[in-house]
Amino acid sequence: MTTPATAVPELDFIFHPRSIAIAGVSAKEGTGFGGGGFVSSLQDIGFRGPIYLIHPSAPAIRGIKCYPSLRDIPDMVDYVISSVPARFVPQLLEDCITRGVRVLHLFTAGFTETGDAERAKMEQAVVARAREAGIRLIGPNCMGLYAPSGRLAMMQGQLPEAGPVGMVSQSGMNAGEFVRYATPRGIRCSKVISFGNGADLKAADFFDYLADDPETEIIVAYLEGIQDGPRLARAIRKAGAAKPVAILKSGRTEAGSRAASSHTASLAGSLQIFDGLCRQAGALRVESLEELVDVAVTFRFVKHLSGPNVVVVGGGGGASVLAADDLAAAGLQVPPLLPETQEELAKVTHEAGTSIRNPIDTTSLWEDQGFEATLMPCARASNIDVILYHTSFGGGPMGRYADIRPRMQRQAESLRKVQEDGGKPVVVAIRPATTGDSFEQSVEFQEACWRNGLATYPSIDRAGRALAKLLQWQRLRE
Amino acid sequence: MTTPATAVPELDFIFHPRSIAIAGVSAKEGTGFGGGGFVSSLQDIGFRGPIYLIHPSAPAIRGIKCYPSLRDIPDMVDYVISSVPARFVPQLLEDCITRGVRVLHLFTAGFTETGDAERAKMEQAVVARAREAGIRLIGPNCMGLYAPSGRLAMMQGQLPEAGPVGMVSQSGMNAGEFVRYATPRGIRCSKVISFGNGADLKAADFFDYLADDPETEIIVAYLEGIQDGPRLARAIRKAGAAKPVAILKSGRTEAGSRAASSHTASLAGSLQIFDGLCRQAGALRVESLEELVDVAVTFRFVKHLSGPNVVVVGGGGGASVLAADDLAAAGLQVPPLLPETQEELAKVTHEAGTSIRNPIDTTSLWEDQGFEATLMPCARASNIDVILYHTSFGGGPMGRYADIRPRMQRQAESLRKVQEDGGKPVVVAIRPATTGDSFEQSVEFQEACWRNGLATYPSIDRAGRALAKLLQWQRLRE
Repeated sequence: MTTPATAVPELDFIFHPRSIAIAGVSAKEGTGFGGGGFVSSLQDIGFRGPIYLIHPSAPAIRGIKCYPSLRDIPDMVDYVISSVPARFVPQLLEDCITRGVRVLHLFTAGFTETGDAERAKMEQAVVARAREAGIRLIGPNCMGLYAPSGRLAMMQGQLPEAGPVGMVSQSGMNAGEFVRYATPRGIRCSKVISFGNGADLKAADFFDYLADDPETEIIVAYLEGIQDGPRLARAIRKAGAAKPVAILKSGRTEAGSRAASSHTASLAGSLQIFDGLCRQAGALRVESLEELVDVAVTFRFVKHLSGPNVVVVGGGGGASVLAADDLAAAGLQVPPLLPETQEELAKVTHEAGTSIRNPIDTTSLWEDQGFEATLMPCARASNIDVILYHTSFGGGPMGRYADIRPRMQRQAESLRKVQEDGGKPVVVAIRPATTGDSFEQSVEFQEACWRNGLATYPSIDRAGRALAKLLQWQRLRE
Repeated sequence: MTTPATAVPELDFIFHPRSIAIAGVSAKEGTGFGGGGFVSSLQDIGFRGPIYLIHPSAPAIRGIKCYPSLRDIPDMVDYVISSVPARFVPQLLEDCITRGVRVLHLFTAGFTETGDAERAKMEQAVVARAREAGIRLIGPNCMGLYAPSGRLAMMQGQLPEAGPVGMVSQSGMNAGEFVRYATPRGIRCSKVISFGNGADLKAADFFDYLADDPETEIIVAYLEGIQDGPRLARAIRKAGAAKPVAILKSGRTEAGSRAASSHTASLAGSLQIFDGLCRQAGALRVESLEELVDVAVTFRFVKHLSGPNVVVVGGGGGASVLAADDLAAAGLQVPPLLPETQEELAKVTHEAGTSIRNPIDTTSLWEDQGFEATLMPCARASNIDVILYHTSFGGGPMGRYADIRPRMQRQAESLRKVQEDGGKPVVVAIRPATTGDSFEQSVEFQEACWRNGLATYPSIDRAGRALAKLLQWQRLRE
């Protein structure tokens, strides 16, 4: 059904331009969004080719030579980023055609999404002219591409390190937020595409591409509207058959639909129909950007669950009770451990019966030898499918140790060992910090965990929902 | 129905001991939970009376003189904290009786919650003997009291500054987590009570007390079980009639009930019955500790909403669309602004029509004069009941300014001015940070906001749910 994963998909050239020109960089502009922002982003990520700037009068901006127009650039240009006002776009497009440009990314807004008929007509005319000339358009009204392998970035701070997660997003901000939240949890990206109004290249094109892209193993998406429903449905089915897919669809309420129409001129369509489409395609639909990140982390690190049975391990009676409630409410099970497991645990813990039944809340977790010794019997238990370890910094026991940094490294390594030797996923919930110190510790522990191959979540509740989503996805694909 | 708020409720003496003795401080123990933890907590918060330690052999611990037994302490002792093993509690109680102690706080666990019949009997015997002698027990199996006015703390880092929020909690950890998460959002506490098994003093006693306590204006609670249902119902009704009340009831699933029984020997009871009780009492039931904090912040800073109509203001088209969805899904409204409001906004913003309809997403927000000028027409709009401003640090526009600290102070002051002059609540959603720097900035902005009388939330979704909860609570009390 899909192209063999070793072939390079047709659209691949858009992610690998050899040179870029940016039109509409203000001479006084610093960083941020817009023309100047793209200069910084591309410099930060280490774009390998030349960057040319187009400016009517400035000789140079940020040390980069400016040309009055695209036609004045003495070298070949593959890719143009437009940050000029909408009314200048038709002329810029003509220049692109003259110079043999292959891709025009329109950061420029002010087209169909304004609700103005004249501006909608202008967008259609630009698309028609570009197609006629064989130029592909990204946008308008979007942040464009983040593609580490091609050293393209849409925002500053995006890492040059590539990874298996591809994203299709109708919003640049939500693409940026996805990357920002997913990165510290160990998610690295293959291609992230913000396509805005999708006047030429649309969601369907990018789903098709990511389904075939050998760099991409997991696909996530943020969609506001449905363009060319049957084609999008085919593309999501193709992607869903090839790889794990999760989609956040906004415009699920009347207020959201109206906002989506203002934002990217999107017709949100019926959520029920979209939900049915996802189910048929074996794609997960999620309800929030947080859940999209959580599911990506789960696809990446947990991959598969044999069943819904969780053992909860961590300090704090009150947290244990709420954990059991949250996990059960998410559709998981927190079964009592079997007598043989409890006997094994009784050998390593001081506590009497109830603390080792599940949830596990024992002081042995805070002893150097006790941590792994407490977790291992849980991983070996025949009625358990996944181990959830929860902790926090700044409050509870972890905050108290003078040797907290080596201790958290040892914990992460022990958790990896438990995951490997036990043959069952171990996931880690790190409750949010409230002080700068404990925040730094949480981030460090989070990194130690994902570098040891563990999924991390900011709460037990979110871990539970993400695991339940993985089970739901597995059922879709049965 | 309630005692006049100027009278001092009967139970008030437990929060104002003149001297404390702690039994069961290990000589090698540092900080953390247990006996030594209480020493640190009381020293940190500046307990005003003498602290005596009871230890069989050590001459002094942490510079505080130790006595072999309570009977050897030469002065009067009002309040005893027990961290000795359960089997030593009966003798300690006899000593308390001999010495005229008024309150015995049993941090000591290992009673009914173990599920062992002998230990349950021992708990009952201790209660009977204490009652006979006129001593009140807190616990067993609990962290006891945090009461700034009496300079009592159950954990380190709890502030001596008092405020209007009282808490009844069956879990010390969840009490501590509530305080830890609520403090940076401007919540200060009157009395926080962790009562564990509630063998003598129970949830009902503390609801009764907080209803009458002139220091307490808002009551929150975490309950695992229902002890003496009719009396608890009366106490919640009394509290709910006097003050805003929000309750997190765990054991809402079978797994949670089992965990609650292990933790504090609680019988969770039917959630439906408890829900009905809350509705009759005009008390809000919430589903998570996060929601309990959010609702406390809402009671404290928003206080009242005239209706469900929100205007959403902040940068980012994608965030605006998701915001509209989340708020509508929570049961609020995001109505289009009226033509006259849009005309006013058009005077201060550069953007065309759709960005000023609601949600508001304009670049004028990032200009010095534009911020207040954009917000004020929203606050004056006749079809709007509450203004939700959203931002983040480390990503979007706020992260880009060199003068970020004075800028966030000015923003918080402008938001206060809009709230005061517009006569409508302004709430602020600050999306989570992912780096140390941006975390520090978020915390600073959060503090600037609450010091200017504004409610803050860690996401638009949580702000929306909390506002919807306030409306729900208002309807309960109509």
